[in-house]
Amino acid sequence: MGELLNRLRRNTMCGELRESNVEQKYTVMGWVQRKRNLGGLIFIDLRDRTGVLQVVFGEEINKEAFEIADTIKSEYCIAITGTLYKRESPNKNIPTGMVELKGESVKILSESETPPIYIKENLDAAENIRLKYRYLDLRRPDMQRNFIIRHKTAKIVRDFLDENGFLEMETPMLTKSTPEGARDYLVPSRNYPGKFYALPQSPQLFKQLLMVSGFDRYFQIVKCFRDEDLRANRQPEFTQIDMEMSFVEEDDVIELNEKLIKRIFKEILDVDVQIPIERMPYSIAMEKYGTDKPDLRFGMEIVNITEEVKECDFKVFRGAIENGGSVRAIKVENCADMGRKKIDKLSDFVKNYKAKGLAWIAYRENEIKSPIAKFLKEEEINNIINKMEAKKGDLILIVADKNSVVLQSLGALRVHMAKELELLKDNKEFKFVWVTEFPLLSYNEEEKRYQAEHHPFTMPMDEDIKYLETEPGKVRAKAYDIVLNGEELGGGSIRIHDSKLQEKMFKVLGFSQESAWERFGFLLEAFKFGPPPHGGLAYGLDRLIMFLSGTDNIKDVITFPKNQNAFCALTEAPNVVDEEQIKELGIRTK
Amino acid sequence: MGELLNRLRRNTMCGELRESNVEQKYTVMGWVQRKRNLGGLIFIDLRDRTGVLQVVFGEEINKEAFEIADTIKSEYCIAITGTLYKRESPNKNIPTGMVELKGESVKILSESETPPIYIKENLDAAENIRLKYRYLDLRRPDMQRNFIIRHKTAKIVRDFLDENGFLEMETPMLTKSTPEGARDYLVPSRNYPGKFYALPQSPQLFKQLLMVSGFDRYFQIVKCFRDEDLRANRQPEFTQIDMEMSFVEEDDVIELNEKLIKRIFKEILDVDVQIPIERMPYSIAMEKYGTDKPDLRFGMEIVNITEEVKECDFKVFRGAIENGGSVRAIKVENCADMGRKKIDKLSDFVKNYKAKGLAWIAYRENEIKSPIAKFLKEEEINNIINKMEAKKGDLILIVADKNSVVLQSLGALRVHMAKELELLKDNKEFKFVWVTEFPLLSYNEEEKRYQAEHHPFTMPMDEDIKYLETEPGKVRAKAYDIVLNGEELGGGSIRIHDSKLQEKMFKVLGFSQESAWERFGFLLEAFKFGPPPHGGLAYGLDRLIMFLSGTDNIKDVITFPKNQNAFCALTEAPNVVDEEQIKELGIRTK
Repeated sequence: MGELLNRLRRNTMCGELRESNVEQKYTVMGWVQRKRNLGGLIFIDLRDRTGVLQVVFGEEINKEAFEIADTIKSEYCIAITGTLYKRESPNKNIPTGMVELKGESVKILSESETPPIYIKENLDAAENIRLKYRYLDLRRPDMQRNFIIRHKTAKIVRDFLDENGFLEMETPMLTKSTPEGARDYLVPSRNYPGKFYALPQSPQLFKQLLMVSGFDRYFQIVKCFRDEDLRANRQPEFTQIDMEMSFVEEDDVIELNEKLIKRIFKEILDVDVQIPIERMPYSIAMEKYGTDKPDLRFGMEIVNITEEVKECDFKVFRGAIENGGSVRAIKVENCADMGRKKIDKLSDFVKNYKAKGLAWIAYRENEIKSPIAKFLKEEEINNIINKMEAKKGDLILIVADKNSVVLQSLGALRVHMAKELELLKDNKEFKFVWVTEFPLLSYNEEEKRYQAEHHPFTMPMDEDIKYLETEPGKVRAKAYDIVLNGEELGGGSIRIHDSKLQEKMFKVLGFSQESAWERFGFLLEAFKFGPPPHGGLAYGLDRLIMFLSGTDNIKDVITFPKNQNAFCALTEAPNVVDEEQIKELGIRTK
Repeated sequence: MGELLNRLRRNTMCGELRESNVEQKYTVMGWVQRKRNLGGLIFIDLRDRTGVLQVVFGEEINKEAFEIADTIKSEYCIAITGTLYKRESPNKNIPTGMVELKGESVKILSESETPPIYIKENLDAAENIRLKYRYLDLRRPDMQRNFIIRHKTAKIVRDFLDENGFLEMETPMLTKSTPEGARDYLVPSRNYPGKFYALPQSPQLFKQLLMVSGFDRYFQIVKCFRDEDLRANRQPEFTQIDMEMSFVEEDDVIELNEKLIKRIFKEILDVDVQIPIERMPYSIAMEKYGTDKPDLRFGMEIVNITEEVKECDFKVFRGAIENGGSVRAIKVENCADMGRKKIDKLSDFVKNYKAKGLAWIAYRENEIKSPIAKFLKEEEINNIINKMEAKKGDLILIVADKNSVVLQSLGALRVHMAKELELLKDNKEFKFVWVTEFPLLSYNEEEKRYQAEHHPFTMPMDEDIKYLETEPGKVRAKAYDIVLNGEELGGGSIRIHDSKLQEKMFKVLGFSQESAWERFGFLLEAFKFGPPPHGGLAYGLDRLIMFLSGTDNIKDVITFPKNQNAFCALTEAPNVVDEEQIKELGIRTK
């Protein structure tokens, strides 16, 4: 068995051979994609990472090879030597379709049982089977492509950041649990029974310390961990492109990253990203799109019609306005004829976002139809239509409630309508936007205190620092998210580098000086020794690769992902361990 | 504070300025390395990642800047704008020594307390202080250099492997505990109380699965974990350059890696590594150097003199030989005059390796001096001298015992003598050797069973497979270590890709079929589906960077290392966590 390769060296990959290579001898190695007996010949499609090559065996080409080929089945791993010829009936669907190899010898490197899943593109098999036999699932050409894209993207990122003076530096995986975030994965310490390491949720504190150390520009492509109940497209371990720069302001971070994004999309997809990328303050994003992750591939912006209806007789509108809320709407073009049932479904949809209902005005060819028409004056209806810039054939969908509910539900409805109307089918359209001027803090109603929107090290905007202690809710942050097609690709901020300001920030967050020092003492201590101004950004690499691969399933871009219960169907992790191992850690299982 | 940089952009790094740049205006930012008042002028050495630049402030250059400069102290972080001039008294010790910046304005970006350690090269401070204030320790130029080397080395590795068709792919950090290795770090699962993930000791199984998936060539620069009591230069988390290739034999892996090594040493150190690198079978390495990590920078090989003394009257020699052991020696040139006390110390030294004592023959100008001369015939002494090829002035050091003790103690003594005699002072000498033909298995006397020397997936040598079940101890492996100056830099093997052979291997290792499947079932299962022949190699990146940086302390090449108790003095990890967090995991601390 071990001798199989001793006298045999592959000298080409399957996908590389073209007409210019004919009449030369090649040795290829790979897997049997398909085998057919046809007119006394045996045809094998041999597959490797680069593609598929047709090989033909015949008694007249080589009898021994023909006989061995006859015993070969799908997914056998084999080595073939032969001469390349032009194909009589070319296959224009594959790059090697003009040629075929005439098999002069063949070796079976290893046999295969019948695989439990098909090795083909766009497989529609049950996920648990795909995950259990992940090594077969990964043989599928679309999966192979995803990981080639992942490799190339990481390479581009590293090349670009290296060219721009960044050092890739590793930070610890076994570190300290820092509250104020998601739940940590814990690692019991054997040397200090009862104490734990935490796996990092991000290298945030360490990268800031590296700036204090004067490394100037740092990056890392690094695993991060969150022990959260998994929503779709979340994994317990995920990968960040993490970077930090010294002596910079927002513009520096943003401009550099625009160049990086442009390079990635050009090299991977041949898509030209226009830079500078639009910047949109958080408040505008919320106002027009009801979200801090606006999808700009289509319009249908939210419009405030409070002014138009503030004196109307419709109690729902009046009540919302009187309680400090608002009335807002989106315009769905060419949908004025939407049936009642469909509209009822939309009404159900917004109820998921706590809206009490959905009002509507259908501006039809011959009539204006609306269940609220009876409560509104004709002038008021016309004012709404004018404000919405609606044309005949358009449908206006209206929500009235407190602002947060109105914006959130209409924002979601907007995206929902775009999907329903199939406005997002062009998967080569990439609309980027920087969302900026985020609120620094948000008020946690339950805990009756402010909490950091981004994280507690984020720098307030210069002009808002004065409100930090008096009106914390008013303070905007030097924070920025890069949003692509309605999803957050990454985010970052300029950090506080002044320990006095940092302490003030902790005070606003309701930490006593003692508890702030207990949690982040080493950072505050470090800030006593000439920290540079600094800021950075982190991307979710998995999310980025999803965009570049055109998949909407995060499991398609992670080699060995976990399922919704953070369980690995392949290795069956987590699993029981020896009692002895647990004992050594000074812990007991219940 | 936030406004500090708004109107100020750095346009050069400190270490970049030369005579060709004079009479131009620059803004530099960095840390105050040193400040002197001299003849009414203030001189500041400003430091950033690239080096140091002298800046001079004077009342006549700019009064305001001069006054601010007067308040500045060591390690303040500042920004200076000024014009570059040629220096009147150049400093030839630094690259920027021909020029100085005349400070026209200066901004204090942040102040610094007096640092608890000096920010200078080759600091001789207590390690615990250095680790506690790691962010200051990392400001020291020698530490900065180490991490620049680390970044560059990783970049070279990635570029090289990318050029050679490798894909960088990530494998899971939260995985299954696999016994038969070091102790795992465990991560309790919240979803499955009582069950645990393990942090990987290496991506071994996953990289083999990626080969089964047809990715052909994989690599990863990846964190690995071992919960072991820390010896010097070990860390609980360490970094591997891990690679695996399909359709290869040993020569392919070795030849590729020789090119990689050559590239790294050329680009980082401008050292030419001669390839092909010498290969030495394990048995020769043991025989001549008493170790599988031979240091070839000097001779002093071990010589077997059993034949020469087998009939002598010296009971110690005769006894060792009769018990199946041997008598062996090393020759230390020009040390025949070594004093008795020194020789006694060497005797104590070998006792650490279980040798019972050290015999010696000093071949002096006018006499042959030896405590064992009285037991040996003159002819026997002459035979020893001849066999050792000793010249007048040489000292022969002899150990007699069972073979393992003789070889180990003389191997250690050989290296010890080289250090004593300062034969290893040239730190630009790099002697590589591949050690090959390792034993596949070793017999564990305690557990009365064979265990894998490398790991249980290593392929036996073709010509030895026949001994696998009958004489397992005789079987050599297709395994190879790359050794540099007596230290293992990396190692790997060709893997078994035949599930029948793999099962046989497990049987030899004493696993029942059931327990083998329980532990490695998913790999055995994967091998049913056409696994390709494959093999690989992994380097210890930290160790490699130590060589390239010229440090013998692993902590000098890891950003935030742990101490001997796996404790981080900076963050104080591991630490206590909320009781609530522990409860959620279904565990209790004792």
